[in-house]
Amino acid sequence: MAAKEGKSNKLSFQLKTPKGTRDWMGTDMILREQIFSAITEVFKRHGGTQLDTPVFELKEILAGKYGEDSRLIYDLADQGGEDCALRYDLTVPFARWLAMNTTVQHIKRFHIAKVYRRDQPAVAKGRMREFYQCDFDIAGTYDAMIPDAEVLRIVVEVFEALKMRDYITIKLNHRKILDGLFAACGVPEDKIRSISSAVDKLDKLPWDQVKLEMEEKGLESEVADKVGEYVKLSGGREILETIKADELLSANEHIQKGIADMELLFNYLEAYEVLDKVSFDLSLARGLDYYTGLIYEVVTPLSTPEGFAQSQDKKKSKSNKSDDPNVGVGSIAAGGRYDDLVNMFAKKRQIPCVGISFGVDRIFTIMKQRNEREAEEGNSTVRPSEVDVFVMAFGGKGFNGLLAERMSVANQLWNAGIKTEFAPSVKPRLPQQFKLAEAGKVPLAVILGEDELAAGKVKLKELGLPEGHPEKEGYLVSRDDLVEEIKKKLNKTALPLR
Amino acid sequence: MAAKEGKSNKLSFQLKTPKGTRDWMGTDMILREQIFSAITEVFKRHGGTQLDTPVFELKEILAGKYGEDSRLIYDLADQGGEDCALRYDLTVPFARWLAMNTTVQHIKRFHIAKVYRRDQPAVAKGRMREFYQCDFDIAGTYDAMIPDAEVLRIVVEVFEALKMRDYITIKLNHRKILDGLFAACGVPEDKIRSISSAVDKLDKLPWDQVKLEMEEKGLESEVADKVGEYVKLSGGREILETIKADELLSANEHIQKGIADMELLFNYLEAYEVLDKVSFDLSLARGLDYYTGLIYEVVTPLSTPEGFAQSQDKKKSKSNKSDDPNVGVGSIAAGGRYDDLVNMFAKKRQIPCVGISFGVDRIFTIMKQRNEREAEEGNSTVRPSEVDVFVMAFGGKGFNGLLAERMSVANQLWNAGIKTEFAPSVKPRLPQQFKLAEAGKVPLAVILGEDELAAGKVKLKELGLPEGHPEKEGYLVSRDDLVEEIKKKLNKTALPLR
Repeated sequence: MAAKEGKSNKLSFQLKTPKGTRDWMGTDMILREQIFSAITEVFKRHGGTQLDTPVFELKEILAGKYGEDSRLIYDLADQGGEDCALRYDLTVPFARWLAMNTTVQHIKRFHIAKVYRRDQPAVAKGRMREFYQCDFDIAGTYDAMIPDAEVLRIVVEVFEALKMRDYITIKLNHRKILDGLFAACGVPEDKIRSISSAVDKLDKLPWDQVKLEMEEKGLESEVADKVGEYVKLSGGREILETIKADELLSANEHIQKGIADMELLFNYLEAYEVLDKVSFDLSLARGLDYYTGLIYEVVTPLSTPEGFAQSQDKKKSKSNKSDDPNVGVGSIAAGGRYDDLVNMFAKKRQIPCVGISFGVDRIFTIMKQRNEREAEEGNSTVRPSEVDVFVMAFGGKGFNGLLAERMSVANQLWNAGIKTEFAPSVKPRLPQQFKLAEAGKVPLAVILGEDELAAGKVKLKELGLPEGHPEKEGYLVSRDDLVEEIKKKLNKTALPLR
Repeated sequence: MAAKEGKSNKLSFQLKTPKGTRDWMGTDMILREQIFSAITEVFKRHGGTQLDTPVFELKEILAGKYGEDSRLIYDLADQGGEDCALRYDLTVPFARWLAMNTTVQHIKRFHIAKVYRRDQPAVAKGRMREFYQCDFDIAGTYDAMIPDAEVLRIVVEVFEALKMRDYITIKLNHRKILDGLFAACGVPEDKIRSISSAVDKLDKLPWDQVKLEMEEKGLESEVADKVGEYVKLSGGREILETIKADELLSANEHIQKGIADMELLFNYLEAYEVLDKVSFDLSLARGLDYYTGLIYEVVTPLSTPEGFAQSQDKKKSKSNKSDDPNVGVGSIAAGGRYDDLVNMFAKKRQIPCVGISFGVDRIFTIMKQRNEREAEEGNSTVRPSEVDVFVMAFGGKGFNGLLAERMSVANQLWNAGIKTEFAPSVKPRLPQQFKLAEAGKVPLAVILGEDELAAGKVKLKELGLPEGHPEKEGYLVSRDDLVEEIKKKLNKTALPLR
């Protein structure tokens, strides 16, 4: 092999990760893991079980599911055998799995994994070609709106766990109400999807421009204005009353069904104590065609152009990192009900689904900004590793480094499950050992000296104590009591675990 | 989009995952997660920090690293832009990362992720085209053999955590000793790598066949026999004495360096209390060329053809699942020291590394067999989900299902972080609710009745208690005390958490 070749040849290519991908390491990785573990805990609290599917699927599985975005799919090269492509999302693989596993009648599944889109990357906003999705979906025939309400409850719990509850709003709408509204206003049926996608832009564009797009798509000005009046509606439960009181809308059958769903939903959201977080927004349309009922999108101030621009201005330099100043990070979670997708794979199988996908890279971007602000204010708690104890040795003239003794003490602590390191040198100097411990923000040191060891004792010292603290210099502990003493200290001082 | 198309068209392709890949779900997934979390805990205990790299790399990064196995690499299709390929292992991406991040002088990194090889799959043995590796590597210049010993300590801790410590052996060898041995026996330098790979087969083939291969590769019969004498040596520390006492070997400079390393290693392994798990085995060679020092491989009885065949015979049916009866599952972890790999990417960067890769799919296969045996013996503890409480309702004539009340109690428990579910129906029958709880092996039920609720109470019932148990029928608890009572019960009864 090429170990020798490598030495003689110069590299003829750039040393980097592919476009739109990145390595995760250090505090970024720790923050990402914290997000995953908070989300996973919530998913499990609701009976979620984990599914893992291959990173690539047969090409035919993905074909015809993503509309014009299909051009963004990564194909594998033809090396003989099957045609495969990297997954574009986690929903289609889940539907494929449901179609294959015909004995599954109901399931709450979650899936946290990378997906792939050959899109234009925008790193500052957390938009990458390889990025993570965290999906939770409930499949199966249940009584109306019970799973839908639980998914929304889960959304609130997740952002509560991420300490973002106060900063999010869940925009809600219902496909049946939206489509009924278009029909009632006189939008021809074959134009409903395209007009719907124009309406979906109302969070980014002013009404004039949206109306222009509608007219370009062949809608009469009057009809557009009528639509415009209705889709401005947003608020809480009272919107249902407004719709019911409107003769035009309340006569539409689709809308009647949608209203029945929404009334149940509001009851359930009340029992779940999350009514304060939702906004019934008739302009919410969502891009994907496969939604059949409730749809939702989670936004924060950073989701909008203004909020994002502000947050970027606050960063002293690097403000040009934002590639497109007209768009915020976008929604940070989104989903809805899709009752017909599994049926596309298995003719005889009809299994209704409702779910949510968290955009963790966007959530990561927001939380990282918050952490950086807190770090500037001196409140940072992120440690580069989780090591709790650093075992050191010191001695005078003729000091042999006590390597075997450091190993033996580390061994004792590892046996007790305590995260421990020591300097990997035969004879390290004491300042060097303190430096290593400090670099890792390790909270505790166990210091070995020959005399103390001979008496069966070691010194336990909490690092980073202020001058004058009574335990600043540490204290002697018998080796037999060391594990217990360390565990007590790790509990008592409530040291940040990461 | 194609929701309507899907209904009218028949699927023209097979509904499946690509060859050599699989979905993970249910108890398989739970077992795999248990393995990951046990391994992760050990890695973190030793100060490991996690690295995540993209699933694909620039093709040039992988080129020239895997010898003839390069043909197994999955390429991405050329869709404009860079040439990329799926990663083949986690070691080369780590070396690429080290080469790029020049400020990193020392690191303990771990990485748990999927890798891809277009190999012939053998599902029964856990050999797939998409499979997981769990890698731990220590990079940086340290005093000799200190990190090497810690890696071996980690190996033992991992298998201890997986309750497999008693069933593993770590075979050790040293490239310098092996190469020195070949040279001392008269193997020409240009034949050392190919003879080495013949010797590596001694765990699968009898000596006669290995000797034949050597002769076919151009080695004289006498030289082969001499090699054969030495590589039969295996045992503990005493092998070092045997080598030192051998005039031919002890004169070789490479061997002298290797012996110095091994003596240090045995000292350190003693301090780490893992000497009993290692076997110094002069026939161990390892395939990859980039190793420069210590090499090792972890085997169990199932690693050998005999052990594997036996375990397959014990399974009543399905014995044909094994594709190649001549090979066991192979080693379940392997690694070694590779001091020159990073240098292949960055001429000026020389950063020595030593590491281990756990073959989790093989470990999974072994543990799953064990779990199935235990399940037959009635000791199974794997639960299909982690839900701890099922909230139910019952009532007589005119019973309205108490849905809002069930939601409200579930809400109370979710707020307290307790994993809770309830039947997603407006009016579920009581037997149906018990059936759902039983299907999920949920340990506790909270049962709501109208009268009890009016008095502020609910019934708490431990499921699966034997007839005649004093708490078989459950007991009433005030709603205010419910959370505390459940937490006490979940702790006290030491219910299996999964």
